[in-house]
Amino acid sequence: MAAPDKVVNLAAKLALIEDHWSPRIAGQLNDLHVKIAKGQGDFPWHTHADTDEFFLVIRGALTVRMRDRADAVIGPGEFFVVPRGVEHAPLAAEECEFLMLEPVGTVNTGDGERGALTAEDEWI
Amino acid sequence: MAAPDKVVNLAAKLALIEDHWSPRIAGQLNDLHVKIAKGQGDFPWHTHADTDEFFLVIRGALTVRMRDRADAVIGPGEFFVVPRGVEHAPLAAEECEFLMLEPVGTVNTGDGERGALTAEDEWI
Repeated sequence: MAAPDKVVNLAAKLALIEDHWSPRIAGQLNDLHVKIAKGQGDFPWHTHADTDEFFLVIRGALTVRMRDRADAVIGPGEFFVVPRGVEHAPLAAEECEFLMLEPVGTVNTGDGERGALTAEDEWI
Repeated sequence: MAAPDKVVNLAAKLALIEDHWSPRIAGQLNDLHVKIAKGQGDFPWHTHADTDEFFLVIRGALTVRMRDRADAVIGPGEFFVVPRGVEHAPLAAEECEFLMLEPVGTVNTGDGERGALTAEDEWI
């Protein structure tokens, strides 16, 4: 599906999402997908060897644990970029909502084996 | 300057900006700059031949006029992607704040001549 040529309301799209850690594609610019998701609880440790990962929190708080460095605690209206190659694991004690930017084809669980939390590409 | 490896609070960074239509670089992922700006009034018509342009409005409303298609009116919590090659002109009746995503080296006034509103690369 091509990028929709329209204004996207994040709250309206997020209201359609009922599950956690399953990003939906809400837009595209160049080779990047704009994804939105809700998160709650633990997400497994993983690495993206070839891309940075952008997180912008819309509601709640998202903690990004990283190997060998301090956690990034991202609140509403804040963003953080996980550098490529840094093993990380998102965590949300309570439900949060966030926007992500990832190259088309990026697998949410990273470069390892696919699992139950591996999301398929789905536009919303 | 390399991308800062820290959480960026959009409101705190935007509070440092006093001028209009002069995006500051607040982050980087891969070859994209994450820029923030305030806008008020008219911005000149211009085109980016080689890149889409992502706008996410934080406060107020930003209208993107486009040649041969309807205006995109972007409110807070909404995003819009201007497709590459589409001549466009931002407009804000009242002051607005927004986040943009553009490839490193993109000139804000587009592919034409540089002018008084052409911004230099500046991190905030």
